[in-house]
Amino acid sequence: MKEERMPFYAVKEFVADIFKNAGLNAAHSEIIADSLICAEARGIKSHGLVRVSTYVSRMECGATNKNANYRIEKIKGAAALLDADNGFGQVAAYYGSKLAVTLAKRYGTGVVGIKNSNHFGIASYYAMLISDNDMIGIVSTNSSPAIAPFGSYIPLLGTNPLAVSIPSKTKKPIVLDMSASVVARGKIRLAKLKNEKIPIGWALDPYGKDTDDPDLALKGSLLPIGGPKGSGLSLVIDLICGVLTGSSFTGEVKNVTDMSGPSKTGHIIMALDISCFNDVNKFKRDIDRVIKKIKSLPSVNNSEIFLPGEIENNAEEKAKSEGIILDPKVREELNKLADKYNLNKIL
Amino acid sequence: MKEERMPFYAVKEFVADIFKNAGLNAAHSEIIADSLICAEARGIKSHGLVRVSTYVSRMECGATNKNANYRIEKIKGAAALLDADNGFGQVAAYYGSKLAVTLAKRYGTGVVGIKNSNHFGIASYYAMLISDNDMIGIVSTNSSPAIAPFGSYIPLLGTNPLAVSIPSKTKKPIVLDMSASVVARGKIRLAKLKNEKIPIGWALDPYGKDTDDPDLALKGSLLPIGGPKGSGLSLVIDLICGVLTGSSFTGEVKNVTDMSGPSKTGHIIMALDISCFNDVNKFKRDIDRVIKKIKSLPSVNNSEIFLPGEIENNAEEKAKSEGIILDPKVREELNKLADKYNLNKIL
Repeated sequence: MKEERMPFYAVKEFVADIFKNAGLNAAHSEIIADSLICAEARGIKSHGLVRVSTYVSRMECGATNKNANYRIEKIKGAAALLDADNGFGQVAAYYGSKLAVTLAKRYGTGVVGIKNSNHFGIASYYAMLISDNDMIGIVSTNSSPAIAPFGSYIPLLGTNPLAVSIPSKTKKPIVLDMSASVVARGKIRLAKLKNEKIPIGWALDPYGKDTDDPDLALKGSLLPIGGPKGSGLSLVIDLICGVLTGSSFTGEVKNVTDMSGPSKTGHIIMALDISCFNDVNKFKRDIDRVIKKIKSLPSVNNSEIFLPGEIENNAEEKAKSEGIILDPKVREELNKLADKYNLNKIL
Repeated sequence: MKEERMPFYAVKEFVADIFKNAGLNAAHSEIIADSLICAEARGIKSHGLVRVSTYVSRMECGATNKNANYRIEKIKGAAALLDADNGFGQVAAYYGSKLAVTLAKRYGTGVVGIKNSNHFGIASYYAMLISDNDMIGIVSTNSSPAIAPFGSYIPLLGTNPLAVSIPSKTKKPIVLDMSASVVARGKIRLAKLKNEKIPIGWALDPYGKDTDDPDLALKGSLLPIGGPKGSGLSLVIDLICGVLTGSSFTGEVKNVTDMSGPSKTGHIIMALDISCFNDVNKFKRDIDRVIKKIKSLPSVNNSEIFLPGEIENNAEEKAKSEGIILDPKVREELNKLADKYNLNKIL
């Protein structure tokens, strides 16, 4: 069966319409749709349109507040704390990114902490919003339990992604978006579906032992990259996103699929205005030089070398020009939501 | 042979005196001595007193500028660029940390980029200077080539440490200080000295193949934690510390032992004022709670669980109260320098 590509912007509007018809205001619906289709287009499907039905369900049952009053609780110079009022993480982080850019324009840098938020999708989306302004964007969030503090096997820490986006002159930005675990939980779920074993080193079972059984791994904890390093990175991100902002921390952030109430997730968003450190044109030309230099290095397998985010940038560009391929199951879910909210089906 | 502990503060003054007698001003000599003995006391001996002779040699041959004019080149609001004038990384980063704290007191956050610097020892030293002020300190530096961009085997990136220090109420701070490589090069050098093989996964040989031969590993590249993750983290740190500040980058930072000229290292130093995001007392009590919670988790091997930096904090405290143990070779080197600079030998 040939994969069918659907028009990018039509799908995006369709997703926005679902949120609108489910009762969210238009502006916020557009933000969520844009961030979700961005993830989908970049190939990060685990954070793409597969999430729409969960987000809508959260809204419907009140686990996420669709009438949230996103507001600045504290602001002093270049630092601000935003209270998301249990609204959408996407909306809070979008406003947070805009605020970080505004602060950085005035003060050279801007740091925005966000409290009482929820799952915000891919961190790189917000880092790229910032790097579109000749700034470096750094974004992180805490998340529901997955990784254990080093030495233990009780998952108290999230995979806690760190995203950094750095603009270039003639190319797309360099976009790092990494979690602290060796693999995403999605890969283990996939192995389970396929009835395959997983490699030792991906996860521990619920008793802290190495395991190649995806079932036990899903009940246990994900192993962090570099042992104490990944676990330590996840911890300090949790302390900054969770404790500093006054959100939940160390195991208390609820999973996005847990509809019993607010997840109390915290985010941190930083913008660095390049012009305060260097000539912007020189900086961006230097980044171009770095990209060229790295792309022309000899490779381990005689295969192309990709910069962080390059594969995703290419996929996004292709999706925008040629259309987006939806997983049949995701399309079915979206069509069900269309039915429910009196929209024309996507197909 | 019983290990002999020497008085911490006497050793520190002795080290400062070496720098003073070698022609460095008193204030800068004290800063360097303090940061070196801090690393030594914390058990990070690779960045401790073993470095004294190299630093002094750099000064003597002019590779590091002992009369450097550390100056603020740019400042706007909460962001500043410091030109280290090819002086000591320790002095530049010390001033940079103080400046970041001053900026954060006024603007809630402060970011200081440092250019034209040299090796600054352990990044956590400066992060802890910041966290002593009820702030979170984040410090990084680029460094000489060690890790390859992902997909290649040509080491263009440094191990580029990232340090984060977070204060607590009744305990020492939580101090993450991680490099992007699976192991430090020192571990491979040690294996070579002992004529031992190294595990696959530590390094690649000069042709990009896995190797268990420490000799080939030292000629090749160190493997990053988490593959593209560690390599990507090292890259973005290089771009922020190197390209943003206008220092060297992607393979052009000289090793501290290369006396042929300035290393042109760049650093980045950030301070976040906790009071701009949360009540400081509540924050620090919450960090205490996190420490207690993690320490009381069940452990993989029924052994004590340590927070990031805890082992180092304990070692430093012991060294300060009971004295410091010097490696015989380091002591011999220090005594040689004492002879040269008309000081009483350390023993």
